[in-house]
Amino acid sequence: MNWYETHGLEAQDVKQATLAQLCDTLRERGLCPELHGDPQRVITAVNTLEDALEGQISFLSNPKYERLLQETRASAVVLRPGVEAPRGLDLIRVEDPYAAITILIVELHGYRRHRPPRADEGPPNIAPTAVIGPNARIYPGVTIDDEARIGADAVIYPGCYIGPRCRIGDQVLLYPNVVIYDDTHVGDRVTIHANTVIGEDGLGYAPVAGRWIKIPQIGRVTIGDDVEIGANCAVDRATLGQTSIGNGTKFSNLITIGHGTRIGAHCLFVGQVGLAGSVTVGDHVTLAGQAGVVGHIRIGDRVTVGAKAGVTNNVPDGETVLGQPAIPIRDMRRQVAYIGRLGEMHKTIKRLEERLAELEAQLRAKA
Amino acid sequence: MNWYETHGLEAQDVKQATLAQLCDTLRERGLCPELHGDPQRVITAVNTLEDALEGQISFLSNPKYERLLQETRASAVVLRPGVEAPRGLDLIRVEDPYAAITILIVELHGYRRHRPPRADEGPPNIAPTAVIGPNARIYPGVTIDDEARIGADAVIYPGCYIGPRCRIGDQVLLYPNVVIYDDTHVGDRVTIHANTVIGEDGLGYAPVAGRWIKIPQIGRVTIGDDVEIGANCAVDRATLGQTSIGNGTKFSNLITIGHGTRIGAHCLFVGQVGLAGSVTVGDHVTLAGQAGVVGHIRIGDRVTVGAKAGVTNNVPDGETVLGQPAIPIRDMRRQVAYIGRLGEMHKTIKRLEERLAELEAQLRAKA
Amino acid sequence: MNWYETHGLEAQDVKQATLAQLCDTLRERGLCPELHGDPQRVITAVNTLEDALEGQISFLSNPKYERLLQETRASAVVLRPGVEAPRGLDLIRVEDPYAAITILIVELHGYRRHRPPRADEGPPNIAPTAVIGPNARIYPGVTIDDEARIGADAVIYPGCYIGPRCRIGDQVLLYPNVVIYDDTHVGDRVTIHANTVIGEDGLGYAPVAGRWIKIPQIGRVTIGDDVEIGANCAVDRATLGQTSIGNGTKFSNLITIGHGTRIGAHCLFVGQVGLAGSVTVGDHVTLAGQAGVVGHIRIGDRVTVGAKAGVTNNVPDGETVLGQPAIPIRDMRRQVAYIGRLGEMHKTIKRLEERLAELEAQLRAKA
Repeated sequence: MNWYETHGLEAQDVKQATLAQLCDTLRERGLCPELHGDPQRVITAVNTLEDALEGQISFLSNPKYERLLQETRASAVVLRPGVEAPRGLDLIRVEDPYAAITILIVELHGYRRHRPPRADEGPPNIAPTAVIGPNARIYPGVTIDDEARIGADAVIYPGCYIGPRCRIGDQVLLYPNVVIYDDTHVGDRVTIHANTVIGEDGLGYAPVAGRWIKIPQIGRVTIGDDVEIGANCAVDRATLGQTSIGNGTKFSNLITIGHGTRIGAHCLFVGQVGLAGSVTVGDHVTLAGQAGVVGHIRIGDRVTVGAKAGVTNNVPDGETVLGQPAIPIRDMRRQVAYIGRLGEMHKTIKRLEERLAELEAQLRAKA
Repeated sequence: MNWYETHGLEAQDVKQATLAQLCDTLRERGLCPELHGDPQRVITAVNTLEDALEGQISFLSNPKYERLLQETRASAVVLRPGVEAPRGLDLIRVEDPYAAITILIVELHGYRRHRPPRADEGPPNIAPTAVIGPNARIYPGVTIDDEARIGADAVIYPGCYIGPRCRIGDQVLLYPNVVIYDDTHVGDRVTIHANTVIGEDGLGYAPVAGRWIKIPQIGRVTIGDDVEIGANCAVDRATLGQTSIGNGTKFSNLITIGHGTRIGAHCLFVGQVGLAGSVTVGDHVTLAGQAGVVGHIRIGDRVTVGAKAGVTNNVPDGETVLGQPAIPIRDMRRQVAYIGRLGEMHKTIKRLEERLAELEAQLRAKA
Repeated sequence: MNWYETHGLEAQDVKQATLAQLCDTLRERGLCPELHGDPQRVITAVNTLEDALEGQISFLSNPKYERLLQETRASAVVLRPGVEAPRGLDLIRVEDPYAAITILIVELHGYRRHRPPRADEGPPNIAPTAVIGPNARIYPGVTIDDEARIGADAVIYPGCYIGPRCRIGDQVLLYPNVVIYDDTHVGDRVTIHANTVIGEDGLGYAPVAGRWIKIPQIGRVTIGDDVEIGANCAVDRATLGQTSIGNGTKFSNLITIGHGTRIGAHCLFVGQVGLAGSVTVGDHVTLAGQAGVVGHIRIGDRVTVGAKAGVTNNVPDGETVLGQPAIPIRDMRRQVAYIGRLGEMHKTIKRLEERLAELEAQLRAKA
């Protein structure tokens, strides 16, 4: 069984290239590769050091994994100048192996392909008043509701639901069972992974005589261009106005965003991040896994929020915060260090008490 | 492009009313509005101060947003007596602007409407032994399994699955792709948002010789009346007996509830809350975002659990707890204050040591 | 209304057995039950002490619930030797009541049954190139994409999507709306609960000029045999190579696993656990609720990670860790104790300062 059988790429999809051609590709993209080995060696796939087989290229970026170089069955490896490698391995040396391997993955493998719907599948369920752009691929089991508009070249997998009056941009890719509530706007080239929900009602209730009375959530969600959202996320529509996600922002899985929250451009949110409502997040912000943000606060541009941090106050531009409640990283490191020394402090205080008692006794004796 | 085109409300749905009429509505609901402005001005929508256009009404409740009053294009604003506002804005002054705006949203916009299924859509998949109440709207792509009963006026969106022998109440609203496992009971006027799962098996295994042997989960889930559950939540069925959610309780998104946990009435659970199994939660309890509760404990009535808190012990009625492990808020505030002063304590101890050494030296010198 | 009507078991499914027969069953499975009561009493169901009715058997394992013995309407109870019980209750005494009741649940109730698809339901959507094993039950509303292979006796509920070239084992059970991306391998006897997603792209982007450029995620997910995964989970495919879950591992709900993470056999992950990418987890590892693990670290065999812990460093075999950052439990307990005594430490330091000032004054007076 060859690697393609286990990996499943169809033979006709597989590009292959010589090491010399791969180095040319890297040079075209602005890198300066140095080839140590056979320029005519044919490479058919990129793989990890552990999983690579003959004819495949791998890479070493994190020094932690250097020992894997000794055991790899890859035919070639991309790595930094100066890093030692066993004889017999062809090498492409380059300053940024991770950037280089990214380029080679795109070159040899490309992105996921989406087959056209088959005639025998039966049609999706599209409202007569919906408008579907040219070349959109809408699979059976999709519902497109009244007056929704779907852009050109969109791909919408089975089980998706697009609510009334939504606007879905060009080249949008919705994996199975994505649900988009009424009036949502989604920009161009947006990808949303399976079972994510956009535009559900937020937690909007007024307390009346010990009961929660629902406030109609009449706002909506607006998603910019080039956004990617992971699986099983949920983005509340606004009570009034909009919840928004800026251009180029990327979400991992299981993220929830509260109503009226506005997120800037080119942010990165790791898995299980949760934002309450009416939060404002700037551009180029990173939230690490399981971080949370309370409502009605402002997070500036280029902020980094550490894993599991709980942000309860505004964060200025460029700051890195950690902990619960989240504080600047330098303060947090000091705090953790102090907490780690609490046992020692405790003993020191005990000793001070004894020495003091001793002195007091001496003085009393002299008096 | 006017606001309705972007927002998507259909023209025939839009109510409009004069400021005088809106004040009458507020008075009918028990508020005491004072109108400062043109009673005949026509209002067509509610919106945020930032997004409002001419002909729309907005509100100011949180003083934090007072500066937005200067820039709003709204024609009228609801706000407290005594708060200053720019000339030219019509004002409705009222003690509780948030309650007032809720009433006005309902008056002008109402709740989401659900179109009847179209004849050309094809039928849902309903088992011959299922019983469907009068006027239920069940869209195509829904599966209703053996002996399930659906109440009158229920609305069930595409992709929902209702398992065997479920009982779904009147006027229940299930958004797309909601999955309800066998034998679940759902009360009247319950709303469940997209992709939520009710009644899946909990984590019930017996360890036998280093393996986990599955324990059949033969209990079920019971949900009371007027419950609303957000998107992508998961509520385990009980191993034996039931997991239950009381009347009027509201959940946000991405909440998980363990098997056999019983939640009281009129609670509010914010996003990403997680409860283990066999927990008992009283009435009128609030759990803030990302809070967690370990198994087999009891949380009393009217308890508030802070964001990210980890509850590991019983909590008495009326208590507010914070932190991990969660402790009463007054203790937690003191603890956070002490931790913030650890650096200072450390320096004080250093200084004490020096002063003590100095005294010891003096005494030795005298001896 | 009898219990079966509310619980929904169909009459023909219900087994019943005498207490003598139930004791025989326990003995066959290696337990040593002692019956105190009527051997001919007929038992028709297992239930909780609170919910049990006449003719049913319950159990007491956790001493916390001992008071419920007084009020139960069960006809018989399984409990430890020596625990007092009210007169009139038939008793099966056994060293491990929890293990015993598990056996009795399986004996009397068995596991969930899955009806065959009905002829009138219409067919699922299966690609001509897909291969379906014998006796697989694939319900309408399922999509099986190109070249996927489904094992014998698999059960796939409505709304599931199985991507191109997936390999799904024998006796696999997929509840509604499970989405499995292309090239995923799932072993035999795997159960996946509703709305879980396997194989979506991970958070793989290269930063280029302030934007995130997507790295094709060309790896896949491999799931071993006898795995069970809860509702609304998400398991990223690997960038290269594979993300894997070992044999017999069990997940609760709302768990996310990052790309390239490898999880061993017979682990137990509680709700809302989150693992970043490239993590290695050994065998027999327990992660409690809401625990998180950062990327590129190694967790050994038989490790226990406490609820809400944030693991940021490698954890050796057999260790139990708690807290954020997670540290060994003995250190964490000491730390929590010290933090709880901070107020006292603070006062002690104050008193030391006063006593020292007093001494210094005395010495100055003498000088």
